Amino acid sequence: MEPPPPLRRGALRVVALGGITEIGRNMTVYEYEGRLLVVDCGVLFPEDLQPGVDLILPDLRLIEDRLDDIDAVVITHGHEDHIGALPWLLRLRSDIPIIGARFSLALIAAKSKEHRLTPKLEVVAEGERRRVGSWDLQFYAVNHSIPDALAVGIRTPAGTVLHTGDIKLDQLPLDGRLTDLAGFGQLGAEGVDLFCVDSTNAEVPGFVAPEREIGPVMDSYIAKANQRVIVASFASHVHRVQQMLDSAQAHGRKVAFVGRSMVRNMQIAQELGLLTVPDGLVRSLDKVLDLPPNKVLLISTGSQGEPLSALSRMSRGEHRQVNLQEGDTVILASSMIPGNETSVFTVINELSRIGVTVVHQGLAKVHVSGHASAGELLFLYNAVRPRNVIPVHGEWRHLRAQAKLAMATGVPPERVVQAPNGTVVDLVDGKARVVGHIEVGMVYVDGNAVGDVGDSTLSDRLILGEDGFIAITVVIDSHTGRAVASPTISGRGFSDDPKALDAVVPLVEAELAQTEADGITDTHRVAQAVRRVVGRWVGDTYRRRPMIVPTVLAV
Amino acid sequence: MEPPPPLRRGALRVVALGGITEIGRNMTVYEYEGRLLVVDCGVLFPEDLQPGVDLILPDLRLIEDRLDDIDAVVITHGHEDHIGALPWLLRLRSDIPIIGARFSLALIAAKSKEHRLTPKLEVVAEGERRRVGSWDLQFYAVNHSIPDALAVGIRTPAGTVLHTGDIKLDQLPLDGRLTDLAGFGQLGAEGVDLFCVDSTNAEVPGFVAPEREIGPVMDSYIAKANQRVIVASFASHVHRVQQMLDSAQAHGRKVAFVGRSMVRNMQIAQELGLLTVPDGLVRSLDKVLDLPPNKVLLISTGSQGEPLSALSRMSRGEHRQVNLQEGDTVILASSMIPGNETSVFTVINELSRIGVTVVHQGLAKVHVSGHASAGELLFLYNAVRPRNVIPVHGEWRHLRAQAKLAMATGVPPERVVQAPNGTVVDLVDGKARVVGHIEVGMVYVDGNAVGDVGDSTLSDRLILGEDGFIAITVVIDSHTGRAVASPTISGRGFSDDPKALDAVVPLVEAELAQTEADGITDTHRVAQAVRRVVGRWVGDTYRRRPMIVPTVLAV
Repeated sequence: MEPPPPLRRGALRVVALGGITEIGRNMTVYEYEGRLLVVDCGVLFPEDLQPGVDLILPDLRLIEDRLDDIDAVVITHGHEDHIGALPWLLRLRSDIPIIGARFSLALIAAKSKEHRLTPKLEVVAEGERRRVGSWDLQFYAVNHSIPDALAVGIRTPAGTVLHTGDIKLDQLPLDGRLTDLAGFGQLGAEGVDLFCVDSTNAEVPGFVAPEREIGPVMDSYIAKANQRVIVASFASHVHRVQQMLDSAQAHGRKVAFVGRSMVRNMQIAQELGLLTVPDGLVRSLDKVLDLPPNKVLLISTGSQGEPLSALSRMSRGEHRQVNLQEGDTVILASSMIPGNETSVFTVINELSRIGVTVVHQGLAKVHVSGHASAGELLFLYNAVRPRNVIPVHGEWRHLRAQAKLAMATGVPPERVVQAPNGTVVDLVDGKARVVGHIEVGMVYVDGNAVGDVGDSTLSDRLILGEDGFIAITVVIDSHTGRAVASPTISGRGFSDDPKALDAVVPLVEAELAQTEADGITDTHRVAQAVRRVVGRWVGDTYRRRPMIVPTVLAV
Repeated sequence: MEPPPPLRRGALRVVALGGITEIGRNMTVYEYEGRLLVVDCGVLFPEDLQPGVDLILPDLRLIEDRLDDIDAVVITHGHEDHIGALPWLLRLRSDIPIIGARFSLALIAAKSKEHRLTPKLEVVAEGERRRVGSWDLQFYAVNHSIPDALAVGIRTPAGTVLHTGDIKLDQLPLDGRLTDLAGFGQLGAEGVDLFCVDSTNAEVPGFVAPEREIGPVMDSYIAKANQRVIVASFASHVHRVQQMLDSAQAHGRKVAFVGRSMVRNMQIAQELGLLTVPDGLVRSLDKVLDLPPNKVLLISTGSQGEPLSALSRMSRGEHRQVNLQEGDTVILASSMIPGNETSVFTVINELSRIGVTVVHQGLAKVHVSGHASAGELLFLYNAVRPRNVIPVHGEWRHLRAQAKLAMATGVPPERVVQAPNGTVVDLVDGKARVVGHIEVGMVYVDGNAVGDVGDSTLSDRLILGEDGFIAITVVIDSHTGRAVASPTISGRGFSDDPKALDAVVPLVEAELAQTEADGITDTHRVAQAVRRVVGRWVGDTYRRRPMIVPTVLAV
């Protein structure tokens, strides 16, 4: 696709630097009259084909030379896929105003402290309207799986955008804070030119069950347990935790939080009045473990089977303090994020081996999604009546399903714009059109370096991870090309058999005799010859394709 | 656990060499009076922590010195996790009689041909009773997701075993061949001392819906499609394919089979009269692709997202013959085998990107399991009334669920024997007891070698696959320890940055100056010093842990 034309006066431009065709690293850049407004700045977690990568960032390189044009970053809510990349953005420019609700900003403050950053945070609340530069912003309460989520309305002379962030329409939310459908309706009546809407569950028919239904199910397991109960949950799911606390209180159990992020987030939630903790209910892990087993409830991280998490270590009998017994109960009050199935089932199997009773989403209603299903999305379309739609927050399968819903409610097909990351969409005269494309790359964080791991390194890791390597070191005389020592051969990740490579030495020696006879002294050419002969041998003998790594030194 | 005592006269011994605490590589060895009867001989497919491995075999090493004691291998059905390891067993002794139903043996014959083996195959049918050595065997029709599945009753003077193989209780099977509950009941009335029963779906409440319900759902999608339809399915699921053929015939579409195993198995099924193909319905792929899109139905392998399968290649636009278009329909009439979710969703997303309509189990009832759910398992217990139970064919979570079902129907807890692979269970006086344990290892096939890849290689692969390696080659004078050339440093799978390792050379040079000054000429000690300095540098600088591979040559 062609590069984008300059943005014409009076037009609004939208480009996603992440989050469209993937679930994660949400970051959308709006541009009007040379000024930028960013919505969210999250991370994406790597998959199988990105081995060794810790995090994936939105492609911040694309705004590196426009940092001073940014008026603010609006944060819809505090999940990692919406805030996790902020530290890297703030390292580029530390004084960008970050606008969001209390809980979101408190999580950002805690994260920033770990990164030794002191961002400029501006708290807003639902219902508030605020001008930021030339942007006329309005914030709407939104129901999701974390408190204090917001949608943002963006009024510009070029038109009005409604950007939902992550959203669902639980009609009986625990905190009574409903998604502001009336507010959406008012904005819709005024005219929403562009609707950017969460596609995560667009494929799923119907409605997400109320969070309120989870509590009694968890409670029924806690009620009948006569030993320790451990519940694993997402560390920011305050309402889920509130229901566990209520249940613990009802059944005379004391609670300890386990896992750094769970302890930290629940402390923040309690300080902000989002979590109600009866006096004396929550204690330190040490103290709780001193109680009889039927007085204990642990609320832990590790619901995704992360091998280093407290729960995984408990399942393997490697946790320093918690030693699970036959008859204990573990409730995984969480979804299985796609890609994590194997690690979650590994934990479940290890727990089952011990004889722990494991309750999970596959067997009992101990989790509901935080994202609107198709039925709820229809409510949104009908409230907003948008002129143009960009499906966001989804993989291709979700984006296509979202598009179908938009059209079903009457949005004309040509006004539903599929805009994968980097697609440049301009809103002019009430019409959203794709005007160009910029390349959005995968920016990998590995250890403490960013961006130096790319396709070539990942491709090498995939080869090495499958079949290992065989290294051959050869020293030749720089004048004659004669080998001055016997070649050294070693393999790693290739075979446990210490004799596996014994046959290679004579082959390499014969090859070196040949290159010497041919008068070859160039180390690269000798290395090529060695690579060829060893590669052929290993393919014929083992039908494997390890990396062949010849090193030829001339002395 | 202690090693097993010698088997006493008149007792029956059972040991699983695979299949218990895992789903795959099913193989159970029964021993009576020095003679062995093997049931099934399958493979297990590797998981994330077994990179580069092609297949995992049952631990055949444990019967290597008892091959002549084997009277027969009974095959319950033709799935890979029940027959896939036969070639490796037959290489140890080629004339072991293999007993099974027609379709199972036809699949084994085809597989054996590929391995250039000509096994001794003995066809049996349901209802048949046959003496093999001192074993008194009886075969029972069983309903599963492949035709011709059998359970086997094994009468011995020590007691009677009922070994179900994979089983479910579809009460409206397409071929009318019901699981022989009456036969089970008769054997139960006679007395079943040991019941070895499929645990795959023991956690799942209720009943598996009839296979018959899948056809109309698939048909509804085929009916409304106005372009090409591709259905992906397991290559041995003859009844699923039959329903697609019927639907194609009804809607005037012609069919091509795509994928080597699909073509081969459907040929066999047709020859055995298990698949009914109207004249002219099935054609070659070339021929079918010449027809208008709305006359085409392709039945393909690749339902698990295997990257090299036809379907994956179609999704990436890399298939030589099939070029999918917006508006085509792909139906994944299959389950997602745990661990394959990421690759299946990759295919679905690629297809969605093109604009193909994708129908899968998550969205429509286009698949049912081949394994009995809890409700069906209760029917089995109540028909058989076993004295002792060993839950088989499952991971720990499934085995524990199976045990609970057994106890719920009245089997005493002490008569439900959890017997992971290698557990030696003796049946004496009507009681099954664990008498010892033998170590069952993971036997990995990688390329064309078996058993040389083990824990050390896999652990190296995992390190290399995460962070790559840094190789340092140093040549020293064997007398003085002085470096005779500048060290060579190279990294693979470490960084795309060509200068990433520039800082290492002076560090290594400084270290070599030190080892020389210390009078160290031993190449191993020099290598250790180099490994230490480079490892520390990379940890401090990058927070990564690549493998450090020093090679020190003395000339």
